Amino acid sequence: MRLATIRTSDGTIAARVEDPDRLLITPLPEYPDVKALLREDKWRDIAANADSQPLKINKTDLAPVIPHPDKIICVGLNYANHIQEMGHDLPDVPTLFIKFAEALAGPYDEISIAPWAQSTIDWEGELAVIIAKDARRVREHNAADYIAGYAVINDATNREFQNRTLQWHQGKSLESSAGFGPWLTTTDSWSPGGQLHTFLNETEMQSAATDDLVFSPEKLVEFISHLYPLRAGDVIATGTPGGVGHARSPQRYIAHNDQLRITIDGLGEIAHRFCFEKA
Amino acid sequence: MRLATIRTSDGTIAARVEDPDRLLITPLPEYPDVKALLREDKWRDIAANADSQPLKINKTDLAPVIPHPDKIICVGLNYANHIQEMGHDLPDVPTLFIKFAEALAGPYDEISIAPWAQSTIDWEGELAVIIAKDARRVREHNAADYIAGYAVINDATNREFQNRTLQWHQGKSLESSAGFGPWLTTTDSWSPGGQLHTFLNETEMQSAATDDLVFSPEKLVEFISHLYPLRAGDVIATGTPGGVGHARSPQRYIAHNDQLRITIDGLGEIAHRFCFEKA
Repeated sequence: MRLATIRTSDGTIAARVEDPDRLLITPLPEYPDVKALLREDKWRDIAANADSQPLKINKTDLAPVIPHPDKIICVGLNYANHIQEMGHDLPDVPTLFIKFAEALAGPYDEISIAPWAQSTIDWEGELAVIIAKDARRVREHNAADYIAGYAVINDATNREFQNRTLQWHQGKSLESSAGFGPWLTTTDSWSPGGQLHTFLNETEMQSAATDDLVFSPEKLVEFISHLYPLRAGDVIATGTPGGVGHARSPQRYIAHNDQLRITIDGLGEIAHRFCFEKA
Repeated sequence: MRLATIRTSDGTIAARVEDPDRLLITPLPEYPDVKALLREDKWRDIAANADSQPLKINKTDLAPVIPHPDKIICVGLNYANHIQEMGHDLPDVPTLFIKFAEALAGPYDEISIAPWAQSTIDWEGELAVIIAKDARRVREHNAADYIAGYAVINDATNREFQNRTLQWHQGKSLESSAGFGPWLTTTDSWSPGGQLHTFLNETEMQSAATDDLVFSPEKLVEFISHLYPLRAGDVIATGTPGGVGHARSPQRYIAHNDQLRITIDGLGEIAHRFCFEKA
């Protein structure tokens, strides 16, 4: 099952996606977004049982699949090949940092970058894990019960801002920079393993199997839920594989009018034109 | 004016504090907490005009003054004396990292620390800035309009967790570790300058004037709101002065049954007994 958040004339609603190619959806109008749906104990049944005339939407009707997560926890170094290209040793514990909800963009939105933030904009195609219900001190072997499903996210980064202090956060949360979607694919329909690809203007920049993680989704739920509780709709961005622009030779950053597309086999794609605001 | 969030039998309500010493409050029962009140354009008038019989509360009726901020942005290195004790140069830009709402505790709550997180628990007494309304790309000279007021916060830290990866977040957001309150004192009643003191079992550990910041509240609002928008009820923890346990010789961390108290002259105090959970 696939669940999306759809823009309407006066807000958003949750929906079940019937046909991802033809963009046919069944609305769940009682729920303003997928997080509100996940806050119902019986969200799987509610979503599965919705029954009305399917509607055709446009790609740009898709909002970030969770528009306002309480938390977006990013994992810094999780694919072995990316860890090596960034010059780090394989880690014993995950590196965690935060992106705020204001950093999210719909899966087909144009991404507008403020005049002072246009240098060194980089991509990080990632598998996003979406939490199903309150998760406090959960053990790895039970963690699958707390995962609602998966989606694609771009951990968009301003490398200069990331690296000008010891902490990466200020380069990781630029307003409306990070595409997230196109929808949530539930755990009964997809498991990690599908290939992630990032394309800049149709040139492949990243390619990796999404089960090649040092810390699996279940391990991350265990680790993080022993720091603080996770809630329904919280997001874990599981880290990016090799091939980011900052680590290429020569370095390559996103420019005005560049097209970025990130796909994960079985989950769909997010695709954006970048637009650099004039000063 | 002082605004608090008060625990009730079935949740919380916002309140105006009439007498901070006798703990007399006027309830604002239409608002479940101070954030909900701040989301009203005319929150100052609504709070000032509330008129009912004052009620007496107990200290432990005080919830974190904003129980569920959308964002808690912490500044890492902002007092010159603390920067120097940690061995860093004075910064050009603030270092930012994040604490989640789940890390907050009421101003007089007992702080329970999980068995696996009890080593190297440290204090960081700080001035917290609370945002009054949406703030996007705000300039420093206008920033005062976007600040509702101030409170005391403990940026409680597990130093081992903070330092075991490059990113500090996992040591900065332990569940219910960070006292926040006792109330919001509005900008018409208080300006930075009052002395901050941290006491561990009544021994003074930190003392600094809260206007000795490299980055003032207004500068921080400017800097952060050019990364992403701030919202009413968002919190900026402005950094801690010298005297943290990790930087002392010998190092001193919080132990089971220790009492921690942080005061800022004019804003009040937060005070906690720490309780280390048994395995």
